[in-house]
Amino acid sequence: MKLLHTADWHIGKELGGFSLLEEQKAAFKKILQLALDEQVDGIIVAGDLYDRAIAPTSAVTALEAMLREMNLTHHLPIYAVSGNHDGATRLGAGHEWREQTNLYINTTLAEAFTPVETEEAQIFMLPFLEPTAARVYYQVAEDEIADYQSIEQVMARIVPEMVANFNPDKRHILVTHYYVTGSDNEDYEFTSETNSRVGGLKGITAGQFADFDYVALGHLHLREASPTKTIRYSGSPVKFNTKEAQTEKGVYIVDVTADGVETTWHPIAPTKDLIVLQETFETLTDPAFYQQYDRAHANFFSIRIQGAAQSSNARADLTEIYGDVVELQYDMPKIALDQQVVPEPVDDDISNEDLIGQFYEEVMGESLTPMQETLVSDTLVAISQAEEG
Amino acid sequence: MKLLHTADWHIGKELGGFSLLEEQKAAFKKILQLALDEQVDGIIVAGDLYDRAIAPTSAVTALEAMLREMNLTHHLPIYAVSGNHDGATRLGAGHEWREQTNLYINTTLAEAFTPVETEEAQIFMLPFLEPTAARVYYQVAEDEIADYQSIEQVMARIVPEMVANFNPDKRHILVTHYYVTGSDNEDYEFTSETNSRVGGLKGITAGQFADFDYVALGHLHLREASPTKTIRYSGSPVKFNTKEAQTEKGVYIVDVTADGVETTWHPIAPTKDLIVLQETFETLTDPAFYQQYDRAHANFFSIRIQGAAQSSNARADLTEIYGDVVELQYDMPKIALDQQVVPEPVDDDISNEDLIGQFYEEVMGESLTPMQETLVSDTLVAISQAEEG
Repeated sequence: MKLLHTADWHIGKELGGFSLLEEQKAAFKKILQLALDEQVDGIIVAGDLYDRAIAPTSAVTALEAMLREMNLTHHLPIYAVSGNHDGATRLGAGHEWREQTNLYINTTLAEAFTPVETEEAQIFMLPFLEPTAARVYYQVAEDEIADYQSIEQVMARIVPEMVANFNPDKRHILVTHYYVTGSDNEDYEFTSETNSRVGGLKGITAGQFADFDYVALGHLHLREASPTKTIRYSGSPVKFNTKEAQTEKGVYIVDVTADGVETTWHPIAPTKDLIVLQETFETLTDPAFYQQYDRAHANFFSIRIQGAAQSSNARADLTEIYGDVVELQYDMPKIALDQQVVPEPVDDDISNEDLIGQFYEEVMGESLTPMQETLVSDTLVAISQAEEG
Repeated sequence: MKLLHTADWHIGKELGGFSLLEEQKAAFKKILQLALDEQVDGIIVAGDLYDRAIAPTSAVTALEAMLREMNLTHHLPIYAVSGNHDGATRLGAGHEWREQTNLYINTTLAEAFTPVETEEAQIFMLPFLEPTAARVYYQVAEDEIADYQSIEQVMARIVPEMVANFNPDKRHILVTHYYVTGSDNEDYEFTSETNSRVGGLKGITAGQFADFDYVALGHLHLREASPTKTIRYSGSPVKFNTKEAQTEKGVYIVDVTADGVETTWHPIAPTKDLIVLQETFETLTDPAFYQQYDRAHANFFSIRIQGAAQSSNARADLTEIYGDVVELQYDMPKIALDQQVVPEPVDDDISNEDLIGQFYEEVMGESLTPMQETLVSDTLVAISQAEEG
């Protein structure tokens, strides 16, 4: 069978106060077209369908239209799980009715142990969950809590219970949404410090998922973070920040045969791209420079001004020229901690993630690594989820 | 055919800081049992399934379980609309999948014109909507807006479009959620002042719905507010405030035959009742008095103390005796507007509705009428819906 693997749609996400909804809809259309062209037998969405536990109604309307088009119009089975950004209860509402047409969105641990059975494969869907949720599910006694502290410990109990339901005549697919460490990619090899604890959770090691023929992961937005060849992140189909601007976005087509699993990468070209500029204000405002770019809302621009801006309102000037300026930063030398600093005025539209990132950069003189960035993002999500209750 | 008509479940509602969820679940069980005993062909829920546009997750879990039990376990068709308290987009999410098993929750005007067809009847479901939503739907031009200002005007266009789809060989049922004026019940006859505008919307008159054989209404919580014998409010199945405390709650069984429509009232006895006490503090704390009531969380108590309370903490004393004191008020004489007043300390747990009600009472010396109370409640809901966006 053939599956399309995507993840981290984050429908409703904004970039510097600009809605990404139209770009997300455009990416969706391309993903759907690819699924139809490739005649896949189903689409995997490995968590973070929404950007927030309480998604704005515009995001709800958009995701519903996507699910409808895939599942009701084109009769494509959907294999999805809730990620850490999703509100599991809200996303899971009505799932029994959706399953009647093979639209699966698992949002609880209880659902993880019963795979969807196809002719060739068993597809297990394990949503993101905190160790506390597993302790509730397993009714862990007071004196056993030490064995259920980390997500790694919890997984050591969950995975064997899934494996116990394996049909040896079939291939075994897992759809889930976690950090999985053990990368064979230098760029994303974790330092020993971050290896064991990322996002407040002990990391899962690739070996824990070794029994599966393919693990379709969501959580990290770059496919390069995939820990092994059969345990993969598809990454997000849309660029969410400057770190992701120079990377290629896309999805995997996963071929599941008796001989094994083969994945093929299919890029999804952005309709409205995220372009990062790092120039002096003089260059940025020089027609000879800016006329090389499609502007007037054709692209998003993340701009870093080198040196001082000869303007009383650099943002207004650059917005006039470039259209959608989603980020505006100033290159600053590393600040010694004992130095008196007059801080740059804070951009009103800036997200909490970016604010922390900029602060780190100003103090440390280097930007957050992708891992650190995810840690910051996850912490902020965990806080907002706690507020939602 | 036989239908059960209920409305205004307001799942997730609190009463003076106390959750009504358990009482709502208990009422649901009784409603379901009645539906099974009476072998009805479907259950009408005429709006306000939730109490808020963004219902707490506990309410989502509870309503989902109810829908599952009615529709998937017992295969009962559900005919529901969103009310002014519901968040239409969120409640409507996934409705195409739910409809596969005859669970209908209409949340948009577009859905109102296509009835569900049964052998004997056409069931139209028209959700609550503001005139603005109708103007968008009908793409009303600038110079026609004057004809779409009030809900009465809007209904004058909507109803004929539904009637145009009538099959003359069938009975015609409408499920909706509005004020409908023209009561034949003295207690709820509106004054000329409130007749035309309640809740910021011009009222719909019963005559506008004359083409239907039965109109199953939600919005007002007392069945006594029903405008005619075939245009009825079932009222809420649970008591939500002191005004409703002395009334009988229940549902209608609606018999639809070739000869016409017959309704039978079926009371739903509260499991945990709302008891209103109005006594001196001395009486309230006298065992001979309070021992006549089932206390210790067996009932909710709304208490009005007559005269001064001989206690430094009347609430603590009364909670100790009665358990769940959902309201605590003090009888005060009417205050002249030019009089210097030391206000009573405000109860922290009090809802905005009750706060406005108490203020009105203190100033005017009389309590809000049910109509005024609904006006206050609707205004507050409209404000919170506007915040939700």
